Amino acid sequence: MKRLLLISNSTLYGSGYLDHAENAIRDFLGPASRIAFVPFAVHERNGYTARARERFRAMGCTLVSLHDVSNPRREIEQADAIFVGGGNTFRLLAGLYSFDLLEMIRHKVMQAMPYIGSSAGSIVACPTLKTTKDMPIVQPPSFDSLGLVDFQISPHYLDPDPASTHMGETQEERILQFLEENDAPVIGLREGAMLRVEGESVVLRGVTGARIFRRGENPVEVTPGAELGSLLQPMVEAA
Amino acid sequence: MKRLLLISNSTLYGSGYLDHAENAIRDFLGPASRIAFVPFAVHERNGYTARARERFRAMGCTLVSLHDVSNPRREIEQADAIFVGGGNTFRLLAGLYSFDLLEMIRHKVMQAMPYIGSSAGSIVACPTLKTTKDMPIVQPPSFDSLGLVDFQISPHYLDPDPASTHMGETQEERILQFLEENDAPVIGLREGAMLRVEGESVVLRGVTGARIFRRGENPVEVTPGAELGSLLQPMVEAA
Repeated sequence: MKRLLLISNSTLYGSGYLDHAENAIRDFLGPASRIAFVPFAVHERNGYTARARERFRAMGCTLVSLHDVSNPRREIEQADAIFVGGGNTFRLLAGLYSFDLLEMIRHKVMQAMPYIGSSAGSIVACPTLKTTKDMPIVQPPSFDSLGLVDFQISPHYLDPDPASTHMGETQEERILQFLEENDAPVIGLREGAMLRVEGESVVLRGVTGARIFRRGENPVEVTPGAELGSLLQPMVEAA
Repeated sequence: MKRLLLISNSTLYGSGYLDHAENAIRDFLGPASRIAFVPFAVHERNGYTARARERFRAMGCTLVSLHDVSNPRREIEQADAIFVGGGNTFRLLAGLYSFDLLEMIRHKVMQAMPYIGSSAGSIVACPTLKTTKDMPIVQPPSFDSLGLVDFQISPHYLDPDPASTHMGETQEERILQFLEENDAPVIGLREGAMLRVEGESVVLRGVTGARIFRRGENPVEVTPGAELGSLLQPMVEAA
C-alpha cells in the first residue's frame, strides 16, 4: 500500500525548519530510519543537505542525499523512506529526469516505501507540476511528474487579500486557469497543512485547512481531520 | 529598426483596461491603425477580443484577432502593428507554437512592425518565458520565445512585504533563483511601468519604476525616463 506525507511548506512563520511537521513526520515514519534525500530543488545542495540531515538526526533518522552518493539508485534501493525537499519545482523535476529516477521512485513508493514531500516535493508526487507557483527557471523534458496520487496540490495556498490593489492573479485565479485546461482536482494546501495518504485514503492534517477546486464546481473548504479520498477522485469521463 | 512597447499590466488598480497606457500606446503607434491581436493567453478568446477591439477603437484603431481569421499569417502580413495581450504565459506561448507564428512575428518586428505587449505579451518578447509568475497550466514545446529583446521582463513586479508572514518566495527571490540557472539580465516592471524599445534604446516609462537584477550584482532601482539600454545588455562571456 502506498504511503505519503505531503506537506505544504517546510518552514512555518515563527518556527524552525520542519518544526510544525515534526510530530506528523515521526508518526508517519514509525521505525524507518534511513532516509534518501532529494535536494534537487535547491541550487546549493550541500548546505541544504546539511540542514536537512541535522533536522532528521533530531528525529533519530540518518539522511543520505542523492546528490552526494556515487549511485543514487542504489541509495534509494537501500533506504527505508524518501524525503523530497522544497525549492524550485522545475529544477527539482529536471533533476529527477536527469538522474533518471522517476520510474524507480514511482515503483518503490507503489511497493510501500514511505514518501515525504515538502512544497515542490509535494507537487512532484502529483501527475504533473502544472500547479506550481514557481518560476520556470529551467525547462524539464516534460511537465509529467511522479503521479503517486491522482490529484494536484497547490502548496503555500494563499487566500485572496480583499485589501490588495495588486492586479496580478490570485492563487485561486491561477488554479481556475489550470482547470480551464486540465480536469484533475486541485487541493490548495495552506501553509501549515499537510496530507497523509495511505492507499486510497487521504486525510488532511495540520491546523490551517485547505480548499479543493474541481472543474465546473464551486470550491470546497475542508478542515483538519477530514477524509478527502472521495473529494479528490479524478473526474469520471462521460461515456 | 525594431520598435516595442512592453507594458507590465493591462489594468491598473482604480482605472480601466489599458487606461494608464493609452497615451503611451497612441504615441508609440503614431499613424498605425490596423492592429493584429494575439489573444492566445486567455481561454475565452471571443470576449477578450471584443474588449480589446473596443478599447483600440477608442484610440482610432481597428483590431483583428488572429483567432478569428482563416489565415493568421496573412493578417500579420497586412497589419500595421501587433498587440500581444496578457493572461497565462504558457498558454500564450503554446498558442504561438501551435499556429507556427514565432518566426514570422520575429521577422516582421525586426523589419520594424511595431510590437505592443502587455504582461504575458511582454514576457514572450523576451528570449524565454522563464521569468513568468504564471502557473504552467499547459506545456509549450519549448520555453524559448520571440527573443525580440536580449533581457527578461518580470511583469507585475511586487516588492517584498516586510509585514508578511507568508513563507512562499517573494518575486525578488524567484528572480534570484532564475539567475542561479541563467545569466540574462531581468527587469522587474512594477504595475504601471512599461518599456519603450527603439533599436538598442530602452526607456522606462510610466510612474512606478522598476528594478534590474543581474547575476552576481546587487539589484538596481531605476526611475521613469531612464535609458536602460546599457544596464540591460547581456552578460559578456569570459573569454
